[in-house]
Amino acid sequence: MNPPRRFSLELPAWVDELCVDPERSYAPEERMALAVELSARNVRAGSGGPFGAAVFEQQSGRLIAPGVNLVVSSNCTLAHAEVVALMLAQQALGTWDLGSREHDYELVASTEPCVQCFGAVHWAGLAGLVCGARDEDARAIGFDEGPKRDDWPACLEASGVTVTRDVQREAARAVLLAYQADGGPIYNAGHDDD
Amino acid sequence: MNPPRRFSLELPAWVDELCVDPERSYAPEERMALAVELSARNVRAGSGGPFGAAVFEQQSGRLIAPGVNLVVSSNCTLAHAEVVALMLAQQALGTWDLGSREHDYELVASTEPCVQCFGAVHWAGLAGLVCGARDEDARAIGFDEGPKRDDWPACLEASGVTVTRDVQREAARAVLLAYQADGGPIYNAGHDDD
Repeated sequence: MNPPRRFSLELPAWVDELCVDPERSYAPEERMALAVELSARNVRAGSGGPFGAAVFEQQSGRLIAPGVNLVVSSNCTLAHAEVVALMLAQQALGTWDLGSREHDYELVASTEPCVQCFGAVHWAGLAGLVCGARDEDARAIGFDEGPKRDDWPACLEASGVTVTRDVQREAARAVLLAYQADGGPIYNAGHDDD
Repeated sequence: MNPPRRFSLELPAWVDELCVDPERSYAPEERMALAVELSARNVRAGSGGPFGAAVFEQQSGRLIAPGVNLVVSSNCTLAHAEVVALMLAQQALGTWDLGSREHDYELVASTEPCVQCFGAVHWAGLAGLVCGARDEDARAIGFDEGPKRDDWPACLEASGVTVTRDVQREAARAVLLAYQADGGPIYNAGHDDD
């Protein structure tokens, strides 16, 4: 077997149904509603874990890229919802630095980022991060957020990323609880909780 | 513009020249030599920053996937060398959990991981992480490792990932210094150093 040279990842087709109008302007509350709906539908469709996210143009509310957790379906531990949304947004905008463009961009995520997504948010050039459910809501159903610094919101703020927490937290948490109640798999690779 | 649905990323063609024999067994010192050579050639070829990495089968030394920094060329802040190698390795092995297979796998990286790659290493199911240059060697030429915990090696060890540091550090560091001397771009998205 020769070493592979190409990696690719694709959103499930059902995501298009939720994002039909590219000109739509999402109000702030509609942005989190979309992230939570992505998390819920991802479970129902069997395409991944109960996590959704999306990158928006901050002022206009235009959707740049949605994301859902695709870890298991794409064989990729990087493919958390936040990372998928960021990779697609940077590709759509043709830049690795979302902070270099005319507009500001924010990532809206149904659950607070794990250690990996915290790092990804740090590098992406975002102006804002908006979170629904809390770390402890994810941990409560068995997901591990990894060895993330306790002061992660302050770290992001210090690098210019405004962090907004607890937005529609109960709606986001309800998706996590439903996932647990249905016996959804908890995938923490290769090791026990830290 | 409709939101994008697909992300893809491809190693530069020159990587094939370095990895011609899929049956080759790399001795431990040859593994870091490959990571460092990837970092040096990535700069010379103009395909990215001075960072290389590769995933190996730990016992046999078989190369599973190489990786180089492709942040600028692929418009993706996720595309650090470590992440590229991990994504390709998981795809090659057909699993998101490198800890679930018959063999153990290690990631050999020319420089210690930034905050994002630390998180990615945490989730990948690796048995080992082997590093060349230190965080401070990257910072010394202007690259920012991000708000990573000071106790990151202990965190990885606690989750079952053996961390080996300072392997061929001077050779790895020499590539960083040459990059700086040649005026290579330092890309830290959207914000100043932390």
